[in-house]
Amino acid sequence: MPKAAIIGGGVIGGGWAARFLLNGWDVTVCDPDPDAERKLAEVLDNARAALPALSDGPMPPEGHLTLTTSIPDAVTGAAYIQESTPERLDLKHRVLAEIQQIAPQTPIGSSTSGYKPSDLQQGAINPSAIFVAHPFNPVYLLPLVELVPSPATYPAVIDSTAAMLRGFGMFPLHVRKEIDAHIADRFLEAVWREALWLVKDGVATTEEIDEAIRMGFGLRWGQMGLFETYRVAGGEAGMRHFLAQFGPCLTWPWTKLMDVPEFNDELVELIAGQSDAQSGAHSIRNLERIRDSNLIGFLRALKARDWGAGRVLNAQDATLQAADAATPLWHGQVLPGWTDSTGSMAPVHHLGIASEAASVFMRLNGIDAPLTPVQTHMHPQGHARRGDPLSATVELRDSGAGHMSLRISISRMAEPLAEVTLRLEHRDPDTGASLPIPRSL
Amino acid sequence: MPKAAIIGGGVIGGGWAARFLLNGWDVTVCDPDPDAERKLAEVLDNARAALPALSDGPMPPEGHLTLTTSIPDAVTGAAYIQESTPERLDLKHRVLAEIQQIAPQTPIGSSTSGYKPSDLQQGAINPSAIFVAHPFNPVYLLPLVELVPSPATYPAVIDSTAAMLRGFGMFPLHVRKEIDAHIADRFLEAVWREALWLVKDGVATTEEIDEAIRMGFGLRWGQMGLFETYRVAGGEAGMRHFLAQFGPCLTWPWTKLMDVPEFNDELVELIAGQSDAQSGAHSIRNLERIRDSNLIGFLRALKARDWGAGRVLNAQDATLQAADAATPLWHGQVLPGWTDSTGSMAPVHHLGIASEAASVFMRLNGIDAPLTPVQTHMHPQGHARRGDPLSATVELRDSGAGHMSLRISISRMAEPLAEVTLRLEHRDPDTGASLPIPRSL
Repeated sequence: MPKAAIIGGGVIGGGWAARFLLNGWDVTVCDPDPDAERKLAEVLDNARAALPALSDGPMPPEGHLTLTTSIPDAVTGAAYIQESTPERLDLKHRVLAEIQQIAPQTPIGSSTSGYKPSDLQQGAINPSAIFVAHPFNPVYLLPLVELVPSPATYPAVIDSTAAMLRGFGMFPLHVRKEIDAHIADRFLEAVWREALWLVKDGVATTEEIDEAIRMGFGLRWGQMGLFETYRVAGGEAGMRHFLAQFGPCLTWPWTKLMDVPEFNDELVELIAGQSDAQSGAHSIRNLERIRDSNLIGFLRALKARDWGAGRVLNAQDATLQAADAATPLWHGQVLPGWTDSTGSMAPVHHLGIASEAASVFMRLNGIDAPLTPVQTHMHPQGHARRGDPLSATVELRDSGAGHMSLRISISRMAEPLAEVTLRLEHRDPDTGASLPIPRSL
Repeated sequence: MPKAAIIGGGVIGGGWAARFLLNGWDVTVCDPDPDAERKLAEVLDNARAALPALSDGPMPPEGHLTLTTSIPDAVTGAAYIQESTPERLDLKHRVLAEIQQIAPQTPIGSSTSGYKPSDLQQGAINPSAIFVAHPFNPVYLLPLVELVPSPATYPAVIDSTAAMLRGFGMFPLHVRKEIDAHIADRFLEAVWREALWLVKDGVATTEEIDEAIRMGFGLRWGQMGLFETYRVAGGEAGMRHFLAQFGPCLTWPWTKLMDVPEFNDELVELIAGQSDAQSGAHSIRNLERIRDSNLIGFLRALKARDWGAGRVLNAQDATLQAADAATPLWHGQVLPGWTDSTGSMAPVHHLGIASEAASVFMRLNGIDAPLTPVQTHMHPQGHARRGDPLSATVELRDSGAGHMSLRISISRMAEPLAEVTLRLEHRDPDTGASLPIPRSL
């Protein structure tokens, strides 16, 4: 198995170690922290519980982990080296020099979020092996790695690292022009500064800011980025229309961040042209459906975990269910033909009422399959008489692939008279095989 | 059914109309666009296909939709009015005046993303009924609504609107201090400006920027916001540690956005205290697991849709599967006892080899349940002789709840000798019921 050297075993270095180990590489982590072993084990525990859940096939057998405090020991025999030490340039220079005394030809990716590769290469024994490979926490789950070479970095080093990362299920983004903070962290920095102002000025708390993100545009950005989202928002008229609408707002003094590029035709054409190249293969209508389907997927995932926007939806379900149970779906009077000579209604008519109410329920929910009531229970609670005004409410008790259970409550004003539970199944009439219940979605 | 008036039937107004209609309200949309009916129908089609998928119970029967070009007709009898006209203050003032000539007491939420409620209230007949209710596209799916009163807005109007929105499964965020662009759009604006610079300076294309968002922090922000994410990133030491690390970077000239709040102890304490109030109920370790579980949910949703980060993971699956098939899990020689008098191996021994290889495969994948090979097919392709070096590769062909199929390919060097397919099932030994296949996840 190939071996990777991870220099610095914190949250980021530990996440890298997990990526390599769980993809079958042997890993040596170099960290002087006496607590390194425990901290690393915790990150690895998290990663082992998480990363394999993304894979539909078997992952390779886990590699072998070694811990050391010696950089030369760590990098000897390594096919790849990842540096994740604290963000101090003097420290990184010392670490890189020590690495290259032993392994001058081995590719060295740096996890730095701020420094340019040419900063890191200053005074290096072999600048051509050094580049930025900036990951995102949790490194063992998020795909993005910004791969940033300087002009001195060998292109082949970037290409082979990109191939390696793709093999790990990561997404190497080749940043073609080195700048401070690369790409993603420039956005994070801009948002962070704005957030500090909002907290400092008492406009919003940290919690309100987080809700403003995760209940809205945060959900959008996990599946489409800034430009594709706006392209869709522009509607039929697309990106140019959106830019024409949004452009003038740029000169408004919304944020405290005031240096704004001039929004001229040249910039509009540049953006609109790139957006066409990026998203033009899909119609706006198609992109809308893709976006909606993705958002449904995200929101259902959060619902299942009762977290964030999913918790909001679960609360709504509970309210709707309570309201449903309270809204009668059937109203009627006890007809003369339903009663005996004393004017009492025969209880069997509760089944007729229940079937009417269930039928309304199914119609309202767009269920038009021939469901079979495979099991019915009735629990009588009172007696109805000729002419009594009755109503029935319906509650969905349970549903799954091919079956659902309804509880129908029949009452005279507020007084309960009977409760009927129905289990309905959808089966193929010929084979008896269970069929899904179609809804008009 | 209560009735809502929607003034302006574009993408945002149409989204609002869908929220009300699908939650059982009657809706009158007022829009002068001759194409309004068609455009509205398209938004409603999308919404009908999407919003009910978020609900686990039946939704109320859809309300009745009316279209008009008359504001007085639209607002007469409405219990709630939502204004979604273009972002021009003079236009909004005219629309609000026309509304309040008919309905001075009815709550009017404005979808404006930029104006403050006090801007909207200038010269109004009844300022106390006017406020901002700023939603996020697609309005029929994203929960967030920024509810912003001015000091002149009646608090009861905000409270009742918040309750109504919660009933729709939305998340009303009460913005306590009115500022231009409220909260979320200040972040969007900051990111947008930064993105324009990156495109203009040729650092990144729109596509690269979108990838930098949706492959990384975008996935984080759908489930935790900025501060909770950073709290977790700070690790055991939490928010104060994170701030201490990140604080100094604020003075670095990364972005072109240069007005930065002073990062003093007071601001650190304010943020750390608010973060404790927000997230202190969970340990960092617990938050890590919640985050990871959410991210897995998002990534699996994208995988199922072969989109964004999910497409990256599907590509990795395909690669792994191909690699799996190529890595032998069994090596051995044809033993003397396996051969007849001529030295030919009896083909039945292929089954023994296949079972060994399958067993290694299951061990590597952490499957330790007693799986029954319910069906085996063998396809002979050649003959082995005593002493031949054989190897076997295993490919997962298919798997589901309670069963999986393996294809074992046996060869002598590159020459295929036999292919064995195994269908394995996990069943309860007593009842014969299908059991899920446990993996060591």
